[in-house]
Order: sequence, then C-alpha cells, then structure tokens
Amino acid sequence: MDRLRNLFSALGVDALLVSHLPNVQYLCGFSGSAGLLLVETGASTLFTDSRYTFQAAEEVVGARVHIAKHGLIRAASEAIRKKGRHRKVGYSLTYASVAQHNALQAGAGKHVRWMPDNDAVEKLRAVKDAGELAIMQEAADVISGVFADVLQKIRPEATELEVAAEIEHAIKRRGGSGPSFETIVAAGPRSAWAHARPSGNPLGKSGLVVLDQGAIIRGYCSDMTRTVLLGRASNEVRHLYQAVLDAQQSAKKAIHAGVKAGDVDAAARKSLKQAGLAQYFTHSTGHGLGLEVHEMPRLGRGETTVLQEGMVVTVEPGVYVQGLGGVRIEDDVVVTADGCADLTTARRDLLEL
Amino acid sequence: MDRLRNLFSALGVDALLVSHLPNVQYLCGFSGSAGLLLVETGASTLFTDSRYTFQAAEEVVGARVHIAKHGLIRAASEAIRKKGRHRKVGYSLTYASVAQHNALQAGAGKHVRWMPDNDAVEKLRAVKDAGELAIMQEAADVISGVFADVLQKIRPEATELEVAAEIEHAIKRRGGSGPSFETIVAAGPRSAWAHARPSGNPLGKSGLVVLDQGAIIRGYCSDMTRTVLLGRASNEVRHLYQAVLDAQQSAKKAIHAGVKAGDVDAAARKSLKQAGLAQYFTHSTGHGLGLEVHEMPRLGRGETTVLQEGMVVTVEPGVYVQGLGGVRIEDDVVVTADGCADLTTARRDLLEL
Repeated sequence: MDRLRNLFSALGVDALLVSHLPNVQYLCGFSGSAGLLLVETGASTLFTDSRYTFQAAEEVVGARVHIAKHGLIRAASEAIRKKGRHRKVGYSLTYASVAQHNALQAGAGKHVRWMPDNDAVEKLRAVKDAGELAIMQEAADVISGVFADVLQKIRPEATELEVAAEIEHAIKRRGGSGPSFETIVAAGPRSAWAHARPSGNPLGKSGLVVLDQGAIIRGYCSDMTRTVLLGRASNEVRHLYQAVLDAQQSAKKAIHAGVKAGDVDAAARKSLKQAGLAQYFTHSTGHGLGLEVHEMPRLGRGETTVLQEGMVVTVEPGVYVQGLGGVRIEDDVVVTADGCADLTTARRDLLEL
Repeated sequence: MDRLRNLFSALGVDALLVSHLPNVQYLCGFSGSAGLLLVETGASTLFTDSRYTFQAAEEVVGARVHIAKHGLIRAASEAIRKKGRHRKVGYSLTYASVAQHNALQAGAGKHVRWMPDNDAVEKLRAVKDAGELAIMQEAADVISGVFADVLQKIRPEATELEVAAEIEHAIKRRGGSGPSFETIVAAGPRSAWAHARPSGNPLGKSGLVVLDQGAIIRGYCSDMTRTVLLGRASNEVRHLYQAVLDAQQSAKKAIHAGVKAGDVDAAARKSLKQAGLAQYFTHSTGHGLGLEVHEMPRLGRGETTVLQEGMVVTVEPGVYVQGLGGVRIEDDVVVTADGCADLTTARRDLLEL
C-alpha cells in the first residue's frame, strides 16, 4: 500500500478509492466478492458487507474493516464526505460504472474532485515480486502437470466437455483452487474458433484439438494452451504446427526488460509471415497474467508499454484455418533483465494421439 | 428483440446499445466474451472481434455481424455517428464504465444524446418463457442429482477443496457446461462464513457443512444450497436447521404473482424472529436467476418489485453463528399465478453423515 501512497503526488490525489476486486485483494488481502478499499495517506479502510464480517477479520492486512449496512458506495462516499480534507480522490474510469460514479459524486458532495487513477494499481500489479513469482511458478507447474494427467483421456470418443471436466478435476486434484477461466477444448473444425466453448461433440477420429487451460493457486493464475492431433499429421498440419512453434520461439527471443510490448508481437508476426501464415494469426501475441488471467501489459500490435523485469506474460501465437483447424501454443514467461524464463514446462512437440 | 423495440418510445430512444454480455446473448444468441449489440428499429448489429468470426456466424440470430478491427466501442460509436437519424441512444449506466461512456460520447459525436436504458433488457430477462423454464428445470435437476452423487464423498478426512472438485466434476458428468459460480464448501466454524471459498482444510469429524453449488445448462444457471452435519446433531443444531427450513417454507408460501419482493423477504425474517434467530440472518432471502446467477428481482428487505408469473428466484434463508457454524437451505422456484413451484428437488431433511 505504501508503494501506492508514493504515487499520490504524481496523480495529484489525497486518497484513492479502489473498486476493482483484484486490486483490493492485491492491496489488503481481502478475497470476498464485495469490497471497496479507500487508501488514505495515514490509514486505509475496507468497506464490505455483513456476509464477509468474519472473512474480512481474518484476511485483511493494513486496513480497518467497515461493514456497510446500506451499500458500499454509500458507506465509502459518506466516509469521504466526512473528511473534508480529501478534496481530490482518485478512482478508476475503467472499473467504475456511470451509475457508481454518479452515486459517488452525490454521496461525497461537491467539495470532492474525482480524478482518474491512471491504472496506478494495475501498473504496480504488472511487476511481480519474488513471493508472487513463486506462487505463479506453482500455478504453472499445476497446469503443466494437468496436461500430462489428461493426455490419456484425449480419445476420439470423448466429448470436448468430458475432456474439459477431466482438466478441471485434475486442477483441483493437484491443489489448484479452480480453473482460471472456462477451459477450452475445441476439436476438428471447431479448433479454428480461437475461443470456442467446449461442446458435447466427440473429438472425432482425426483432427487438431486445441486445449487452453489454467489453474488458480492462492489467487494467482496460470494460462497454457497446447494443440494435439488425433490421427497422423499431414504435411499441411506439420507445417502449421512448426510455424506456430517457431513464432512462439521468435517472440520469446524478443523479450527482455526494456523492449516494447509491440516489438514482441511483431516478432511473432514476422515469423508467421515467413511461413506464409500471417493472415491466419487473428489475435495478439500475449497478455500479462497474475491475480487476473488478463492484465497488464498487452503484447499486441503497436503497443508501446516497455516490459520490465518481473512482469509475467503469456506468449501464445496461433493460426486458425477454417475447415482445416487451428493451432495455438501458449506458455507463461517471466521477463528478466536479458531475456525471459519459462514458467510453463509442459512438452511442446506435436503429439499424434 | 421485438419486445425490446416496443419499449423504445417509453424509454424515449431511437436505438439501444447493449453492452452487458448476458443481455447480448439473450437478445441475439451470441455467447462470446466480446460483443456489443446495437438494436435499432429496423435492424440490429452485433459488433465483435476477429476471434469470434466463425462463432458469431454460427450463433447470431436477428442481427448482422460486424467484425471490429479497432475495438468494439469505436466501431459501434462510428456506426451510430454515421446514422444521423439516431439522436437518442439508450445504454446501461450500470454496465458502461466511465471510460466507455467517454469513448462513446467522443466517437458518436455531439448530436447523439445518451439516455439511461432503465435496465430494460434485465427486466425482460426476469420473466422466463416456457423454453427457458424447461432449460432451467434441467439445470436444477442436474444440481439436485449432483448432491445425491457427492453425498458419499462428504467424509471427515476429505478437504473442502476436494468436495468442491467432486461437485464440479459431477456437474460436467451430468451434462452441465460448468458450475454457475465458484462452488462453496465450508465446514465447521467456516460454515458461519456466508460466502467462504473452499480451503484445503479437512471437513473434520463433526460440524455443519454448507454446500452451495449450481450448474450451467445452455447458458442458464441453477443455484442450490444444502447444509449437512458430520456427527450427531445437538439440540442447538437441530433448532437452527429446523428454523431455517421453516423460514424457507414461510418465504415460499408468501410467493405468488403480484406480491412485492420485500414481502417474501419479510416472511422469512418473521419466521426466524419467532425462532429467536433473526439477528443471525445477515443477507437477503433470494435473487433472480437465469443467464446470470444473480439477476432481477432481488428478494431483499423493503424491495418493492412486484413478482410476476414466470420469474425464477432463489429462496435461501440462512443463519450464521460464530463458533457454532452456519445453516443455509436454498432452492430455485418459479413464480406462478397463485404460488410458486420448486425447480430444485434435492432432499431437504437434516442429514447426519
């Protein structure tokens, strides 16, 4: 919380009202589903409701707990109004709804000026400390292990939903608190849907199967994609697979502290262009990962964010050819001074099952 | 979509921009994670991105699909700007962030007036048609079956996380696409946390275990809580359990088309007051259920919403006594002309395991 307070003068604020729950958890440890954290120079207050009385008492560090009886926004804005000295309060334009903003303005009164927080907490969260990296290594290890666990379940007669259920069960067996997003299992033509939900269709005798999965450990997410093949690979499929693997290697090689995020994306795109597949790569190369499965920075076209040591990002080029299918290979890496280190350890060779 | 268009004149709008994803899915069938639906009097347009090209083509009914290259907000606001005739566009103050509102205003230009949508789509969604009720009965049946499946796994040495994993696996085995929220398994003193996340702690030899779980079937949620006991019940625990069951019955008896939501909540509270336990009932009696696990109406203190035939709500009184533990019993019911009908069928008697 002190690192955040150090930013107050640069933001021109006397206090920050934090509404996005992963930010609340990051700053004070509270993991409930209703919380507003008011960070002030002297002290901080977590506003939550009566469902979380005991949980907040157990979890919250560095803030006093206020159990709100008539809504968190009302309690927080009244607390702000009572302290006349807070004339400028930062808040997130991204996470506050128009209705919440209106209620805050009405509740806190006209002497309070609401200032954009410039994603201050998200920027702090992007760089992980050693304790966070240890947990994220664990989350990556869990999902790498899960992939090995479920390989034998990937059979023609299994449905996409059944394989997804096996993956999510294995996540919990290995100690994850759950999947970090709805597991994707997409077989055959559906593998060309970059974000397909699993269906009740069997995987079928032959074809590509995209498996995109992640585990949560103590709040932190992993995110890994592997693509396997049922049947024997045609030259066309081998070419697709190798091209995506090469693009991933190129992107990883481009990563180091000081590089622009957009340059990493460009490296993946250039590699796929050399393979004649650039037009089938329809999303960005990766994204930050932590308490949320998508967070700062984004590794997309033209992004000017400079990568810093300790950032954790996914590297996940993919190609999607309607009719033929899709290939995506995704690892989690931590940015280091002169390169990056893989958190994900699952095998990356083309498996013909 | 026509029922929505019929509301345009009452809302004083020429078009509605729908951003909340369950509303988008309800209106046009699209289930992807990035979508904005512009509903106009003549036609409608779904804005999504290139990851969803194939999925949108397959799923969307009643709208043309626009694949946005530079963000959905930009594409939608440009489309609005180009049609000078839309001078008043409705949008959700609840779901639009301040940043999105600013971007919409800038993109659409000053001749467009942005109007509150008064939760028009949420209100339509609250009343389910026969097709939706059939799916919701299926979702309730799945979770009732899951409870029977996992009863034998509720043993002193099992951890909360293991039981949660069993529940979520059973949901998928029974054909659910997943849990409708993070399954709650809270044993012993933790059962007094109304919304505890499962921990790695074993359930222990004796004590109450609260299990709160739901399944998703074709997008629709069920939500059910049962409380079981490890060991033999003391008189105190029997009294708690019976009081909550009585309160649930009282609330169900209060439900019929035409009653105020707050009167249902009052019925549960009155019943618990007679048992001397009102102060331990720290949340509201229930909530609407459908494409979201919490939707309109809310069965809370003083709520003036009038229940209508076809609404689906949870009825879930609970008491939480620090040290002793918690009891919550939750069913899903559909409001009928003269009462309500249970969707949930799992047994409700106190099980001593």
